[in-house]
Amino acid sequence: MTKRAFDLDALSAELGDILGDRLSTSQAIREQHGQDESFHPCAAPDLVAFAHSTEDVSKIVTLCAKYKAPVIAFGAGTALEGHVNAIYGGVCIDLSQMDAVVQVRPEDMDVTVQAGVKRRQLEEYLRDTGLHFPVDPGADATLGGMAATGASGTTTLRYGAMKENVLALKAVLADGSIVELGGRARKSSAGYDLLHLLVGSEGTLGIITELTLRLYGRPEVEASGVCAFDTVQNMVDAVTLAIQCEIPLARMELMDELAIFAVNHYAGLENEVAPTLFLEFHGTEASVADDQCRFVEIADELGGKGFKAATSPEERKKLWRARHEALYAAKALNPGKKGLITDVCVPISQLAQSIADTRQDFDDHGILAAVVGHVGDGNYHTTLWVEPGDEAALKTAEDAVNRMVERAIAAGGTCTGEHGIGLGKRQFLQEEHPSAMAMMRTIKAALDPDNIMNPGKVL
Amino acid sequence: MTKRAFDLDALSAELGDILGDRLSTSQAIREQHGQDESFHPCAAPDLVAFAHSTEDVSKIVTLCAKYKAPVIAFGAGTALEGHVNAIYGGVCIDLSQMDAVVQVRPEDMDVTVQAGVKRRQLEEYLRDTGLHFPVDPGADATLGGMAATGASGTTTLRYGAMKENVLALKAVLADGSIVELGGRARKSSAGYDLLHLLVGSEGTLGIITELTLRLYGRPEVEASGVCAFDTVQNMVDAVTLAIQCEIPLARMELMDELAIFAVNHYAGLENEVAPTLFLEFHGTEASVADDQCRFVEIADELGGKGFKAATSPEERKKLWRARHEALYAAKALNPGKKGLITDVCVPISQLAQSIADTRQDFDDHGILAAVVGHVGDGNYHTTLWVEPGDEAALKTAEDAVNRMVERAIAAGGTCTGEHGIGLGKRQFLQEEHPSAMAMMRTIKAALDPDNIMNPGKVL
Repeated sequence: MTKRAFDLDALSAELGDILGDRLSTSQAIREQHGQDESFHPCAAPDLVAFAHSTEDVSKIVTLCAKYKAPVIAFGAGTALEGHVNAIYGGVCIDLSQMDAVVQVRPEDMDVTVQAGVKRRQLEEYLRDTGLHFPVDPGADATLGGMAATGASGTTTLRYGAMKENVLALKAVLADGSIVELGGRARKSSAGYDLLHLLVGSEGTLGIITELTLRLYGRPEVEASGVCAFDTVQNMVDAVTLAIQCEIPLARMELMDELAIFAVNHYAGLENEVAPTLFLEFHGTEASVADDQCRFVEIADELGGKGFKAATSPEERKKLWRARHEALYAAKALNPGKKGLITDVCVPISQLAQSIADTRQDFDDHGILAAVVGHVGDGNYHTTLWVEPGDEAALKTAEDAVNRMVERAIAAGGTCTGEHGIGLGKRQFLQEEHPSAMAMMRTIKAALDPDNIMNPGKVL
Repeated sequence: MTKRAFDLDALSAELGDILGDRLSTSQAIREQHGQDESFHPCAAPDLVAFAHSTEDVSKIVTLCAKYKAPVIAFGAGTALEGHVNAIYGGVCIDLSQMDAVVQVRPEDMDVTVQAGVKRRQLEEYLRDTGLHFPVDPGADATLGGMAATGASGTTTLRYGAMKENVLALKAVLADGSIVELGGRARKSSAGYDLLHLLVGSEGTLGIITELTLRLYGRPEVEASGVCAFDTVQNMVDAVTLAIQCEIPLARMELMDELAIFAVNHYAGLENEVAPTLFLEFHGTEASVADDQCRFVEIADELGGKGFKAATSPEERKKLWRARHEALYAAKALNPGKKGLITDVCVPISQLAQSIADTRQDFDDHGILAAVVGHVGDGNYHTTLWVEPGDEAALKTAEDAVNRMVERAIAAGGTCTGEHGIGLGKRQFLQEEHPSAMAMMRTIKAALDPDNIMNPGKVL
């Protein structure tokens, strides 16, 4: 983490000429932009530039290219692997003021937004259109950040991740040039798919400034269900069967025993302490009833215990309360500690064993960490709680995460289902994609020869 | 179309050492590999090499790299834009003998196949598993070719194109190195998405040798429906509303008046000569009944005439017969002529006008060409029939295609929804993606500095 040498004063003066008071050198603002929600220590940029337009971003990157200064895009700061930390210094471009919904096209079921529009803001904006944008990573992230990190979440099972839902984007490349990638036609086989090269590239190949997203009709009926199982294996078997039967579930969320125990304790709930599956069904009254009925049949076969269902918003909220409170409950069990949050994703045939191995490993090392997961995708998360300053505990937690990730890769899975590489998982990218690393480096070098775009991340 | 200069004798000798009688210089075999199903004149490669493994392909490409000889992958030869034509000579690698289904994993609902496995062969192989692979471009193409060209088809509306259904692949790059991209986990945000860079790159960045595909549960019930409309606009409005209401249709195929007229004449059918929509519903008995009922309500509102439904295989076949016979019917109306087949795709709000403009243009120029299309995706096809050798007629047809494509791009669409760029649409790629061309060229130059991979295609 040596700061890169470049002429900061000259760059600052030239940026100031363009941005005026939208360029900040204040320590508080710099530090606020030097970290995300992860465990990685703050690394403040030298300057924070607030962009109002794609042209602003182009001008800023052009100057950074001139001075070979690192340039890092910042949205809401909700990333989880140190994506925004300015480990080599440089300029942070804050895109949060680029928050205009440019155009909703109900007939084409798409929307164009600036990169700084947040997920909940868009949800609110769409409220009266009968349409919705379903990708929900939990945090109220910016849509530009969600695209840049390849975010997904609880509804990915049904509606896909950002990857499947970004139709087009505008981005600024390392030389300051502006590109428009993808398009609004629902299909195209015209030329290289550069859109998907930028989605998930974490600001290392370009900065996304505007994006067109796919929308969906809001379902007539949303119903929820909860069902406990004797074992995680039985639950995964039920989920597998439901998917094979093409029951179009919108959400299938797993909480393990420890997660249920924590939330019972925290929120005074009385859920049975057992691996529990939270479900959501989207459709018409008839289709939801049919889907529920088919799911219950499957759950019954696999020892599912007492499927509970709800359709009214209040009842649904109550039923899902345990899932919604999971992180707060875990926090409450670990007062004063900071969470080391991680995720892996494995083929679903490996999921039950992967979770069992992780649980065993945690038990062996005296780690109290619950497992929650998007079980339909084979993706699960855990948070390891560490007292700030306790280096030994941090090392124990990091080692446990490393073993969990290595087991996931060995099982044919990935080191991260939805959090990205950032700083925290760089060591595993090589392990997961040994033969692809050279190709990734070739592309990075070709598109960003001076390595100014979010240097030190991903590769 | 000048042949590139390279030491053919030396390359041929070295390849012969490796391949023995799997290297062919026979004129008949070379010519058979010098063209696809398009209008582009045959351009035979100098050599045809039959590969049996990824290692074979790697060795062949390594030698081509040594001699800077063009190298072109060949599957079933069913492409439609001159993708395989060896316009600079070189070596054609025929992958059709790499036709092993490597592994089906029912629990993970995926399958790994060699690149030369054909679509119908896989369908047959999966028959008893309860699973199916839905991407259906019409032709019995190889799955490697379908991935390389970013194919899609009638079921893309529901199940996505190749882009959405290739989970992982093995490929040989321009230096002969073997890469494995993607993975079997259903989600990953680990590193650059190089998988989607290769899918649709038409053999210009690498040769796909093995791929893992997503499978789906075979629906309990498949039902068909047919419905005529007064105007294409009304039909498109009905389709738009059905999509907004999230009716999960598996297929929605348009035939225009001329297409219906042709097929009535050819097959002695008595369909009303009107824009006609062919539908397919996949699901359970209850969900299909619900979906049909909702669709009929929508169609009724928009002047749909006499919705006919069928669930038994025989009745369904009869109902869809017009659609299945469309190409033969058009051929029969144009005896002795060869078809210039093309496709465009536009945002659905532009579809009715786009088809109307195309029809008007054809009428103005005395062109007799029917329109069929995957209307839910905004994608439509037409075939212009030309007497071989009639250069004036060919020019008229090509000019009409050019205008159709230019109108589609102007309407926010793409020059090709599913046929790809190949030779035939290179001029339009620049028009559609002006700002992205430099980035595409940078990536091509970085990954294939000697331009040996299918040179002259895409870019």
